[in-house]
Amino acid sequence: MENEFLYGCAYYPEYMPYERIDEDFALMQKAGMNVVRIAESTWSTLEPKEGEYDFYHIDEVLKRAGKYGLKVIIGTPTYAIPSWLAKLDKNVLVHTKNGDVKYGKRQIFNLLSDTYIFYGGRIIRKLLEHTANHPQVIGFQIDNETKHYDNFGAGIQEAFIRLLKSRYTDIEEFNKDFGLAYWSNSIHSWEDFPDISGTINASLACEFEEFQRDMAVNFLKMQAEIVNEYKKPEQFITHNFDFEWRKFGADIAQDGYSYGIQDGIHHLRASDALTHVGTDIYHPTGFQLTGAEIAFCGDEIRSLKNDNYFVLECQSQAFKYWCPFPKQLRLHAFSHIASGADGVMYWNWHSIHQSFETYWKGILSHDLKPSRIYNEISEIGNEIKTLTKEKLCIKKKNRIALLVDTLSLSALKWFPIDKKLSYNDVVRYMYDSLYEENLECDIVFSEYANPNEYEAIICPALYCVSKELTKKLDKFVKNGGILIGSFRSFVADRRVSVYTKTLPAGLTDCFGVHYDEFTHTLNMGAGGKEVKYVAELVTADTAKEIHPYEHIYWSNYSAVTCNEYGSGKAYYIASYLDKAVLKEVLREALKEVYKEQNLPVQTAFPVITRRGVNELNEELNYVFNYSCKPVEVEICVEAEKGYTDAITGKSYVKGDKLRLEDWGVAVLVG
Amino acid sequence: MENEFLYGCAYYPEYMPYERIDEDFALMQKAGMNVVRIAESTWSTLEPKEGEYDFYHIDEVLKRAGKYGLKVIIGTPTYAIPSWLAKLDKNVLVHTKNGDVKYGKRQIFNLLSDTYIFYGGRIIRKLLEHTANHPQVIGFQIDNETKHYDNFGAGIQEAFIRLLKSRYTDIEEFNKDFGLAYWSNSIHSWEDFPDISGTINASLACEFEEFQRDMAVNFLKMQAEIVNEYKKPEQFITHNFDFEWRKFGADIAQDGYSYGIQDGIHHLRASDALTHVGTDIYHPTGFQLTGAEIAFCGDEIRSLKNDNYFVLECQSQAFKYWCPFPKQLRLHAFSHIASGADGVMYWNWHSIHQSFETYWKGILSHDLKPSRIYNEISEIGNEIKTLTKEKLCIKKKNRIALLVDTLSLSALKWFPIDKKLSYNDVVRYMYDSLYEENLECDIVFSEYANPNEYEAIICPALYCVSKELTKKLDKFVKNGGILIGSFRSFVADRRVSVYTKTLPAGLTDCFGVHYDEFTHTLNMGAGGKEVKYVAELVTADTAKEIHPYEHIYWSNYSAVTCNEYGSGKAYYIASYLDKAVLKEVLREALKEVYKEQNLPVQTAFPVITRRGVNELNEELNYVFNYSCKPVEVEICVEAEKGYTDAITGKSYVKGDKLRLEDWGVAVLVG
Amino acid sequence: MENEFLYGCAYYPEYMPYERIDEDFALMQKAGMNVVRIAESTWSTLEPKEGEYDFYHIDEVLKRAGKYGLKVIIGTPTYAIPSWLAKLDKNVLVHTKNGDVKYGKRQIFNLLSDTYIFYGGRIIRKLLEHTANHPQVIGFQIDNETKHYDNFGAGIQEAFIRLLKSRYTDIEEFNKDFGLAYWSNSIHSWEDFPDISGTINASLACEFEEFQRDMAVNFLKMQAEIVNEYKKPEQFITHNFDFEWRKFGADIAQDGYSYGIQDGIHHLRASDALTHVGTDIYHPTGFQLTGAEIAFCGDEIRSLKNDNYFVLECQSQAFKYWCPFPKQLRLHAFSHIASGADGVMYWNWHSIHQSFETYWKGILSHDLKPSRIYNEISEIGNEIKTLTKEKLCIKKKNRIALLVDTLSLSALKWFPIDKKLSYNDVVRYMYDSLYEENLECDIVFSEYANPNEYEAIICPALYCVSKELTKKLDKFVKNGGILIGSFRSFVADRRVSVYTKTLPAGLTDCFGVHYDEFTHTLNMGAGGKEVKYVAELVTADTAKEIHPYEHIYWSNYSAVTCNEYGSGKAYYIASYLDKAVLKEVLREALKEVYKEQNLPVQTAFPVITRRGVNELNEELNYVFNYSCKPVEVEICVEAEKGYTDAITGKSYVKGDKLRLEDWGVAVLVG
Repeated sequence: MENEFLYGCAYYPEYMPYERIDEDFALMQKAGMNVVRIAESTWSTLEPKEGEYDFYHIDEVLKRAGKYGLKVIIGTPTYAIPSWLAKLDKNVLVHTKNGDVKYGKRQIFNLLSDTYIFYGGRIIRKLLEHTANHPQVIGFQIDNETKHYDNFGAGIQEAFIRLLKSRYTDIEEFNKDFGLAYWSNSIHSWEDFPDISGTINASLACEFEEFQRDMAVNFLKMQAEIVNEYKKPEQFITHNFDFEWRKFGADIAQDGYSYGIQDGIHHLRASDALTHVGTDIYHPTGFQLTGAEIAFCGDEIRSLKNDNYFVLECQSQAFKYWCPFPKQLRLHAFSHIASGADGVMYWNWHSIHQSFETYWKGILSHDLKPSRIYNEISEIGNEIKTLTKEKLCIKKKNRIALLVDTLSLSALKWFPIDKKLSYNDVVRYMYDSLYEENLECDIVFSEYANPNEYEAIICPALYCVSKELTKKLDKFVKNGGILIGSFRSFVADRRVSVYTKTLPAGLTDCFGVHYDEFTHTLNMGAGGKEVKYVAELVTADTAKEIHPYEHIYWSNYSAVTCNEYGSGKAYYIASYLDKAVLKEVLREALKEVYKEQNLPVQTAFPVITRRGVNELNEELNYVFNYSCKPVEVEICVEAEKGYTDAITGKSYVKGDKLRLEDWGVAVLVG
Repeated sequence: MENEFLYGCAYYPEYMPYERIDEDFALMQKAGMNVVRIAESTWSTLEPKEGEYDFYHIDEVLKRAGKYGLKVIIGTPTYAIPSWLAKLDKNVLVHTKNGDVKYGKRQIFNLLSDTYIFYGGRIIRKLLEHTANHPQVIGFQIDNETKHYDNFGAGIQEAFIRLLKSRYTDIEEFNKDFGLAYWSNSIHSWEDFPDISGTINASLACEFEEFQRDMAVNFLKMQAEIVNEYKKPEQFITHNFDFEWRKFGADIAQDGYSYGIQDGIHHLRASDALTHVGTDIYHPTGFQLTGAEIAFCGDEIRSLKNDNYFVLECQSQAFKYWCPFPKQLRLHAFSHIASGADGVMYWNWHSIHQSFETYWKGILSHDLKPSRIYNEISEIGNEIKTLTKEKLCIKKKNRIALLVDTLSLSALKWFPIDKKLSYNDVVRYMYDSLYEENLECDIVFSEYANPNEYEAIICPALYCVSKELTKKLDKFVKNGGILIGSFRSFVADRRVSVYTKTLPAGLTDCFGVHYDEFTHTLNMGAGGKEVKYVAELVTADTAKEIHPYEHIYWSNYSAVTCNEYGSGKAYYIASYLDKAVLKEVLREALKEVYKEQNLPVQTAFPVITRRGVNELNEELNYVFNYSCKPVEVEICVEAEKGYTDAITGKSYVKGDKLRLEDWGVAVLVG
Repeated sequence: MENEFLYGCAYYPEYMPYERIDEDFALMQKAGMNVVRIAESTWSTLEPKEGEYDFYHIDEVLKRAGKYGLKVIIGTPTYAIPSWLAKLDKNVLVHTKNGDVKYGKRQIFNLLSDTYIFYGGRIIRKLLEHTANHPQVIGFQIDNETKHYDNFGAGIQEAFIRLLKSRYTDIEEFNKDFGLAYWSNSIHSWEDFPDISGTINASLACEFEEFQRDMAVNFLKMQAEIVNEYKKPEQFITHNFDFEWRKFGADIAQDGYSYGIQDGIHHLRASDALTHVGTDIYHPTGFQLTGAEIAFCGDEIRSLKNDNYFVLECQSQAFKYWCPFPKQLRLHAFSHIASGADGVMYWNWHSIHQSFETYWKGILSHDLKPSRIYNEISEIGNEIKTLTKEKLCIKKKNRIALLVDTLSLSALKWFPIDKKLSYNDVVRYMYDSLYEENLECDIVFSEYANPNEYEAIICPALYCVSKELTKKLDKFVKNGGILIGSFRSFVADRRVSVYTKTLPAGLTDCFGVHYDEFTHTLNMGAGGKEVKYVAELVTADTAKEIHPYEHIYWSNYSAVTCNEYGSGKAYYIASYLDKAVLKEVLREALKEVYKEQNLPVQTAFPVITRRGVNELNEELNYVFNYSCKPVEVEICVEAEKGYTDAITGKSYVKGDKLRLEDWGVAVLVG
């Protein structure tokens, strides 16, 4: 899309204690930056009173950007509303399951409020009119981290009921479909529909949650339509997708990281509104830096359009848990690139002196002076610039797909595998095991998946599956594919109704197993190690047992099986195995896929490899050392002419040792 | 009551994904079942719109029941309300301490709502008219697990104040009685009565809680009156009493078990409305199966009318924590019988595919096919049928009573012994210690107790006692009884006012001790083991010290004492002893009671014995092995003609070894 | 103030189950008591209906007090309101962040309610008219433990906005000052001011919290004004200040202790209303008795007016966690005196039989008979009487000041150092380390501090500092003072805006260090021990490094530094050191201060020394043994004529051993 790699940061002159744009832009330029992202969240500055507009800060940026070689991404300001808007109409603030939200935070509005939509649309139009023709403006970010905000207001409930009514001409069909007879919840006249926020019917609740996600998708589409009226063809529309935000455990603002798939919107359906996907990725660092979040989130975002993406936000220092060791920032940046990023933008330029995210620190600390962090970011920027985008950035084509699903995520909130194990925990358990074995994968929304594009498919806790999907998966294995299914997959249909078929539903032949019982795991093991959370009591029919359960009564049931089916293989993992045992199973199951990759170094975590093809059509192998100790790895596969490290220029042939410093990076071109 | 042992399950054709009654009933019959329990919780199916009735599913059951030898228990459907009823009158839903409840769950109605009462009565009448004359219908269950649902609505508060007004002509008497002067809470005009839900006065709060329980009792009486208008004399009225539901710790639906006495209704006062008591009992299984919950709940329910009872609900497989090991279901069933059950009905026949209790699994899993669980249940059913009710079912007459009290339960929520120790914890601590020593007891509501019916009386945390009761207990010991009182017993009167007498109030002579201080238990022991939660600093006056405290400063106070008083003995247990120490004390105190029983095997947990007399007037000794290892126990008491195991037919004389398989059962007739 | 040491208790005849004033007063007199504190919290008894007054209980006390040698302190009854008052005007009950409060508890009113103020004022006047001229009445306590009660009602919000409006003629100045642009929170018309309870702007929230504290201060001033209209010149006005109430962890009433500075009112600003300060101090006892709370709270309260104070409430036995070992009550009392108390009054005389604080037990247990506790209190009373106030009570002059600040406390709730480390935790970490080393200090509200009165100043987590204060501190060190600053001090200004200067802001020269990064502390140490919670990456510029960090990457940064600056020294403590390491640093830093004190025994915890000058102008050295083992300490400093223990009369010279029993006390006069 852009010729240059986009390296930059979010910039908020509105939040600065004094004016210093020239000083800041000069520092950015010196740091190899070429882009700033502005305006998002500044509605009350842009429109201080209803109908009064003030583009002062935007103009100040645009006026100077060119001089310092900075492109500009304009964010629509809509995700944080001004207090005058909240005062206009009490319906502007979202009504959630827990009641009305108070004014103060961002992301507290009712996406369906007519008032909100009117004023939101108007400020976008004003902003676009003002900026779209400016030569430095390369694109637009619509809204920010959009979600449904737990909207349970009257408006969304009415819209939901209208949808149901249009689907079911016979209300008894609706009762049947959703199993509403249970506990007298059936409704025999649409007028009797109760407040959904009290429902105990998981099918209805999950359907509504999908509807909430769709309302968020529609909202982004509406914004994109407005932007399309104004933008020039070469300007892009992007959005900053975020992920499940997992807390370390502290009930404070400055805590957490990007963990699993997003609950509040459906990324894939939303990506239709965009020309280019963007994301924010935050992760632990220091001793806890593994690269897993960078890889997971990057793989998910890249798979949306099967194309490269912008990292619109990532951390420089931020709060105390994210203080990076020397050289780690560089490893972050190259890891984003190795996952398919065409741009890396930090959040944000400067640390904010007041309000809420004071310790979500920027590149500059509160003293606004260049420091260690600035210096490291500056070295990275200039290194990337020197190496060039055409050399560094890669297109990726993975052979493995990991299937994810927002409906299964919702359903497992109602029917948790264990109070300590969420849907995303299983997704990350599987993903991280692949990651640590250097098995790269795409992350694909299950019901939209085309299995034929892959050699292997992994299904972690894919609780809700359509018959169509199970048929596709069955055929996929018959035709030679490798399918790996985990416990609590293939259980219910898309109405969150457990199949009346034997489990795994529709795939008993394919997996060659069946079960109807599951238990907790006290004193239970498999492969010599403890299993956890749940154990399905699986009987291997045609499948070969890889690991039986180790247990006084359940040893005649299987923890892991493999079935040869057609010309493929289907593995069933019936319990939460120890990760070492799981990784061994995955390695075995995917060994053909791995072998065919001919990676120059064949290792496992903490040495991580990522592969792709750059614009010069060279195959690149990124090699990362995710540890605080230097490592040496042997070059073990012969490329035609050996490998050259694009960074050092050093050449390697088979048998050579590649040395990586602590948190080191090599880019082997072969 | 019934000639046959009732063996069956709850059956909900309303919740089935497709019609299959004939198939289900044939399977039940094959499994030795002879009863189904239906209709409870199906109001929205029975009366889909106000005034429209639909008996389709009931008719389908009744039509076929006779053919398959199945009797039918009809449940009134009132505990789960249809949404149209909630919409009719906003007063139908209960207003709790935490505000209004939303429609969705069961058990969310205001027991005092006129609207609810009108429509609830009407549907019961319609249902009874329709079913009472059917020959298969043997009885009725009114409502289900009825409680007061934390009702703090205007209606119940007004009723409560009316009661107080009628009791106190002088409001100053009321202030005095309840100690309302404290923190300016006194009321000098009834109009000033504040919302009770904010009160900090424990006396008032506990009085109100007793009133709430009475409202639930009245509700059941009202239902019973209606049923009585329709039922035939030979048809019974029962209710499904439940217990404190203790969670394992997971904040999910599929977690927990029957633990202690019920907080939300007074079982004894409610049982007046019934011809036959019923209950549901759920408990941990697998390695955690001890039988203690089966015994505790059974003893409580049997003691209500001093008669046998129905287990109207118990688990087959249910959720993952309850997945039974092979042979455990059989041990469950025989344990219920050994406690005095005349029927065992599983909840429920089939696993439900949607809504809320999807993993509260039934006998059939979601695939609706016979499986391991069905097969085990089938073996049990046919075994019981073969052995016959007259041989197996027993009447019990226990020599020990354990006193329980809902008011003490309430009071100790206000004045907890420790945040980790509830009233029911103390009850179970005492009960389980008896249970593990094979000391069978009745569980008797304290203020209704007649001590003269027993040889020994145990009072765990009996915080609130009337003067009448303390006098009875004093006399009981004088006359030769054995009294065992625990810490925090005999403290306050029935107005939750701490006695101004020296503690244990009214029983200092009887116990021969006194105290006025108590402490937490850091670095404190008794009997060589740690004590926990609380230690009363008891001085032995006429009593003999059994264990002093082990502590740098408190060793001159007693942890356990025994006082010879009249021709009896009174033991005082001043702290939460280690369970091993407590059991030794209990064994010593109750050794005469135990000796006189002449049990054929004299053992302790995991071998459990239960005794009673069957309809053939034989003395039966049930012997259970609550462990995963086979055991051998010696026959140590000589019966007239030795013993015969009613199951195997094998005979035993003194000195013989009785072998019990893991989770095994023997029924020694002596 | 009073000639006699005030020894007594709170007395509530209103709460007694029967009348027994003569009996109680005789027991008090026998116990050496000379004062009772009455009437507080008894409004509903004093004014049972609006406008009807009843002084019965007060009259009964006053009538008899003289006969038994008891003086009387009258408490205004306002902190617990009668239900008729709450019913008069719904605005009487406070509206908090979590919504309206229900009637029942104390301290639930809206300090700004006109209705409350009218009726509160009237009852005070009536009470004062009735009692002020009585000869036994020596003073008045206005209200009790007054705080703002989380008042977020419309009234207080309007008052706050009025204040802001009067301060800012240009609303844009207001936006700038508070950093409101962030997340669109800026307000461009005062009408757009949103409900403050939803704000995410820490500057605004903290400003409002200070305003809430001021409203509580104003309330006390208003009460004092009314009392001043009636009281005689020799009668005092006091108030019962309390502290952060820290729970042990139990969510029950009978749990907790006085821990850190008070969040809900500003003690110093409030003390202006008083002629004499008073306080309640509660603390763990038994093995957990350290004396730290007695010392901390006493030092804080004494420093308010730099004068002695009354302990208006302290524990006798209270709940189970506070059951004292033999001799501990005596140690409590002498420790209060050694901190500057001129009176010790127990809460309360008798244990209350009903309502809420039933187990906040008094001197008499519920049986209302003299017991161990009464006997010990009696011995103490008579011992103090014998020794006399002029001998025992001391004026103190400390050389060290520890600075505290309510604004920093508020700010660190928004920007916590760690979820497990509050502002008061850091205060106590520092204070307790001083205490355990017998380094006595005053506790001074930072912005009111006059550094010149001290030789050393300690700043724990002094997050918000004015420029004026940093200048004073800089000058203080230049002029020879010792300054010890901890992590997270000198960060933000009084608008909770992080300084744009390099940190520690305004004191980089003084400390000779700078930093801009901080991190969590995984695998980090200093002085050979683990550091915790946070580590600022401090570079020593002119300072000498005392301890570097022990860490793979951060060893070039300093954990502790010392800078010689002018003729003083400034120590910077950049992380939460192990307490042993901190105490070593403190000992080193304060060694001159300590040496100059020439204490007769130079020890550390568990032997505690406190010093002062009595009315006879003798220097007293209290020596306490805070342990359950007797200790011997050597007399190591030569006084002119040696030392005499005021209690035993025994003399000591240098080299002699002073033996202290477990929990023992000596009073060395030198």
